[in-house]
Amino acid sequence: MKKSSQNRDIAAIDLGSNSFHMVVARVVEQGLQLISRHRQRVRLGAGLKGQKYLDNDAIERGLDCLAMFAERLHGFDQDNVRIAATHTLRQASNAHLFLLRAREVLPFPIEIIPGVEEARLIYLGVAHTQPESDSKLVVDIGGGSTEIIIGRGFEPELINSKQMGCVSYTKQYFSKGKLSPKNFAKAILGAEQKMESIAYHYKKKGWDIAFGSSGTIKAIREVLIGMGFDDGLITSRRLDKLVDTLCQWNRINDIKLTGLTAERQSVFPAGVAILAAILASLRVSELHVSEGALREGLLFQMEDSFQRSDIRMRTTENLASKHAVDLEHADRIRKQATLFLQQIHQNLGIKKHSELFDLLQWGALLHEVGLSISLQAFHRHSAYILRHTYMPGFNREQQSVLATLVRFQRKALKLHEMEELTLFKKKHVVSLIRILRLAILLHGQRSNDPLPLLELSTDGPTWTLSSQDRSWVSNNKLLHANLTTEQKHWRNAGWDLHF
Amino acid sequence: MKKSSQNRDIAAIDLGSNSFHMVVARVVEQGLQLISRHRQRVRLGAGLKGQKYLDNDAIERGLDCLAMFAERLHGFDQDNVRIAATHTLRQASNAHLFLLRAREVLPFPIEIIPGVEEARLIYLGVAHTQPESDSKLVVDIGGGSTEIIIGRGFEPELINSKQMGCVSYTKQYFSKGKLSPKNFAKAILGAEQKMESIAYHYKKKGWDIAFGSSGTIKAIREVLIGMGFDDGLITSRRLDKLVDTLCQWNRINDIKLTGLTAERQSVFPAGVAILAAILASLRVSELHVSEGALREGLLFQMEDSFQRSDIRMRTTENLASKHAVDLEHADRIRKQATLFLQQIHQNLGIKKHSELFDLLQWGALLHEVGLSISLQAFHRHSAYILRHTYMPGFNREQQSVLATLVRFQRKALKLHEMEELTLFKKKHVVSLIRILRLAILLHGQRSNDPLPLLELSTDGPTWTLSSQDRSWVSNNKLLHANLTTEQKHWRNAGWDLHF
Repeated sequence: MKKSSQNRDIAAIDLGSNSFHMVVARVVEQGLQLISRHRQRVRLGAGLKGQKYLDNDAIERGLDCLAMFAERLHGFDQDNVRIAATHTLRQASNAHLFLLRAREVLPFPIEIIPGVEEARLIYLGVAHTQPESDSKLVVDIGGGSTEIIIGRGFEPELINSKQMGCVSYTKQYFSKGKLSPKNFAKAILGAEQKMESIAYHYKKKGWDIAFGSSGTIKAIREVLIGMGFDDGLITSRRLDKLVDTLCQWNRINDIKLTGLTAERQSVFPAGVAILAAILASLRVSELHVSEGALREGLLFQMEDSFQRSDIRMRTTENLASKHAVDLEHADRIRKQATLFLQQIHQNLGIKKHSELFDLLQWGALLHEVGLSISLQAFHRHSAYILRHTYMPGFNREQQSVLATLVRFQRKALKLHEMEELTLFKKKHVVSLIRILRLAILLHGQRSNDPLPLLELSTDGPTWTLSSQDRSWVSNNKLLHANLTTEQKHWRNAGWDLHF
Repeated sequence: MKKSSQNRDIAAIDLGSNSFHMVVARVVEQGLQLISRHRQRVRLGAGLKGQKYLDNDAIERGLDCLAMFAERLHGFDQDNVRIAATHTLRQASNAHLFLLRAREVLPFPIEIIPGVEEARLIYLGVAHTQPESDSKLVVDIGGGSTEIIIGRGFEPELINSKQMGCVSYTKQYFSKGKLSPKNFAKAILGAEQKMESIAYHYKKKGWDIAFGSSGTIKAIREVLIGMGFDDGLITSRRLDKLVDTLCQWNRINDIKLTGLTAERQSVFPAGVAILAAILASLRVSELHVSEGALREGLLFQMEDSFQRSDIRMRTTENLASKHAVDLEHADRIRKQATLFLQQIHQNLGIKKHSELFDLLQWGALLHEVGLSISLQAFHRHSAYILRHTYMPGFNREQQSVLATLVRFQRKALKLHEMEELTLFKKKHVVSLIRILRLAILLHGQRSNDPLPLLELSTDGPTWTLSSQDRSWVSNNKLLHANLTTEQKHWRNAGWDLHF
């Protein structure tokens, strides 16, 4: 059978704190057909040293793995690969450096995603893999963070990411590889403390069936099966027994258990402690294992590339409504800004239909969310909200771009306050800022009367705004004054504005 | 007639950018009886130099005036005097210094109030003075800021403070005292630019009658009367005429106008320009003059000292509801924290029924507002919201104390991040932080089950928590672990916790 021209191969990679995973799938009519899985234990999290600095050895281990993945992805289109980085790169103060070097070996963008976004994608991965039940609790214990979600169908309803993982807990509670009942008790109690702030909400909400979905949990199942619990279910009582068994040895290195791989061994006791704490805190009677995980979530989102856009559009709408944004005005700004970008995107080197178009539109729709805090300095409040709110479907840098756009929507251009970016070019974001400012300024009257047709053109740093109705600006004294003020702001930033 | 023992004298002072005002009134059965008014032109705003540093001459002028007021207030009770500082002290980077020195000459606390709180109090002053109309626009042009409010009865509905005033605009647009049509045009345009972001909302809301309420506006009325407009109304057309008249002179010092005092003269043209811009932006047909102003607003709030508490309680409730706070839990924390403070307030040197009790309760009710942004680091989001939201009835330092309480409600005590305070003692606020943390920690289960009776006692930096039910803590392993973690946080801050 000839391969349909409709078919395409897509790949998802997750850069975890313990392992890097890649999964490749073919989009066929019936959905996704998994083609291959790759996993390498990189132990990136073990390289996180004082000051949260990722050491060179860990960086090299990560790059080696990415170079290997790169061979498999040779010839893949940009749109068909998604790469998400989690806890360790969220934490690392030199993550920027890692991303820059990664770009050299693997020519696809790496997104650092917030913990809650990681949780949402894990839930999506499990929900697609286990469509049977009505409401699910999903637990995923990673190397640096643990995600805990309750959802129904494909909709997560409670979503949390906690900073505890089998790599970090090994460092913290089983240092020098020592095993003892005391170490276990401390690790379990530490994890229970982490769980306390959310346990109440989860127990109150409840669920029909509980799933675990990570390497740690799969390893626990294998060991339990080795101990004779053939049904593969994980319960508190069985974990207690597993802890007792583990305490037969004094050192992690000495553990000998059927089903436990040499690779997993070093971080296994910490994983057991975390899972024991979660099952106890949430009173989980039995935990099933699901094959779905973060990378599957990434894949299922790519399957329909529009789906992700939809999620982000819904996120944008929800946020606008939560903060009582004047949507009529926001939409005027959105349309005007989009029109401007369409007029000049080629000169700016921005591809049509690229993500920057979307970000500009969402930024326009959300530029006034900060008014819900106060009118004074509301651009800063908007930026604070867009930087810190959990926005399903957005990665960290996309949120950062939105926050940057709204931060610089008005007033003096203190561009030294701009954050470093890796997925997007600073010059592109700066161009979006200029466009958004103009759109907002031109609609300062917040009136429904349409503006005359406006034309934006660029010549290097010099931008020219012209109107079909030539007398429009000169007849409108206030607009003229505002444009003059804007001109000064631009000049201080090294740009020119003609009108 | 013997003075009733019920009667008391109260005083309000406002430290404006142009003048300081004091008004003294007697609380009688029928309401307030004004006894005396004092005004001194201090021109504090003129002393605001580069880096927003208030120069020594201005500080001395301010202190001289306060010393004079202090004589009149000799023997007044703390509760019967309210002093509010506005724009210049909001702006000054060394305001702290001024407040410290002011404390030496005038033994009453000075509150720096946010612009919007100033606006609310002005509205209150006008609403009490002009009870006749249904809906009011109120404009108050100060030395450094201008307040614009629409309200109905005693309720402000739209409320804004803009950073433009007769002192700052004189510096900016009439430097070296030069008068010209061009200067006027620029100043008016500048003010119209400031108005643009709010004009739409104000015109859309509308009002029945418009009032102006500051020295600038009264001076304009006097001059217009001198020009033959006997009805004392201010209109756009009359202001145009006044501008033309003023442009007969080339220098502000040369102006000779019936009704214009020598004191007012130097900042008069800037005031005219700002008012002309406001009337034009909002399409105000005619402006009446009201005698009510900020200091009257302060007085009317003091008349019933409970009223202010009510307003702050309402503010707290509104904010909690806007951010969907779990009120049942927040109220548990409030009760527990209050109980602790009652147990140890004497040792802490905190008076019973003092404002610190209120602040602790409000802080407890609002400690989780930041959850509306995200669970991660929500204590920081709570602090951001409480610092930046307009909270009717609260002055800047009270908001700062609330923000500080919620900022330090959990996690490590990075107390070097605490802001400087002037009205409250840092050691008191730190004690409230310790109480709030304990209350939150003890209710970590968010359960409705009552706790055993707990007793907090202090011995210097060492606090001891004991329970009637002696086994309660030791039987509750998670609580024990949380208290141990808390103990470590306290030790790092130099305190001890026994339990």
